[in-house]
Amino acid sequence: MNVELKHIGVIHSPFHELEGMPIQPAGARGVQGTVEVFQEYRAGLKDLDGFSHIVLLYLFHQSQGFNLHVVPYLDTEIRGVFATRAPRRPNAIGLSVVQLNMVQDRILHIGNVDILDGTPLLDIKPYVPGFEPQTEVRTGWLEGRKLNVEDKKADSRFAGKQDSNNCL
Amino acid sequence: MNVELKHIGVIHSPFHELEGMPIQPAGARGVQGTVEVFQEYRAGLKDLDGFSHIVLLYLFHQSQGFNLHVVPYLDTEIRGVFATRAPRRPNAIGLSVVQLNMVQDRILHIGNVDILDGTPLLDIKPYVPGFEPQTEVRTGWLEGRKLNVEDKKADSRFAGKQDSNNCL
Repeated sequence: MNVELKHIGVIHSPFHELEGMPIQPAGARGVQGTVEVFQEYRAGLKDLDGFSHIVLLYLFHQSQGFNLHVVPYLDTEIRGVFATRAPRRPNAIGLSVVQLNMVQDRILHIGNVDILDGTPLLDIKPYVPGFEPQTEVRTGWLEGRKLNVEDKKADSRFAGKQDSNNCL
Repeated sequence: MNVELKHIGVIHSPFHELEGMPIQPAGARGVQGTVEVFQEYRAGLKDLDGFSHIVLLYLFHQSQGFNLHVVPYLDTEIRGVFATRAPRRPNAIGLSVVQLNMVQDRILHIGNVDILDGTPLLDIKPYVPGFEPQTEVRTGWLEGRKLNVEDKKADSRFAGKQDSNNCL
């Protein structure tokens, strides 16, 4: 299956390399960035400024290949890749929920950014909490690890193999 | 940019056609389905069974073309496509948070399914609410419309042009 994905923009952030990056948006509080949407898609941004948070889908463009078993940052054990957000996955698509601070023409000013500078943007969707689970949520191997995520930074574990550190 | 996306599985649901489908997972409570992950990716499912909810990324494989301006189901006004979840978008990638009820070998039994039967699966990510915004959320044109979403069903607005009705 060969699907042509359109590069609809580019994400700018202070992170020019992997090391030191937060591993999730919750660890990226206060980190500002921008999304530059290409001119031909600008009309699609209408009404986006009413949303406080947006979902970004992007390509882990520096990610090469994948492993089905990985050792995530928050763990020391081998986990299945689909139980993690590791960037080296069969389809190297990243997902981040970021704060939308301002829309200026085709530039989105975003906060809580955990994405590498220069990352190709694939899609923007509105973030709507009412559409998500309202019931109790279990988080498997991550239970009890959530409280520490804000202090956790990337090491060189995946250096040179990914373009975001969005991998739990 | 031509990126090869791997078809890693297929989503099965009771929805064989668009009409009558819920327009979001919150309107799909009680609707059961399965995700069949292809054998070569099975090892990546390790540990997934600890999560009560998962994020599915999939292709709107029957979606053709896109419009930058759309009239969503929950509205009567024209909105920018990136402020909606309309399936006809520059990159026709859908996102649903579903309940994970059971993992049997490479079959995931899922609940709250708003996806068309036969939809190609691109990725599975764990759903972890602690990583999402903890602050007040604004939802633009959708404010005040959320309470009615459970009663809202699809009409033929996008018939033949999409493979899910995940479009707010």
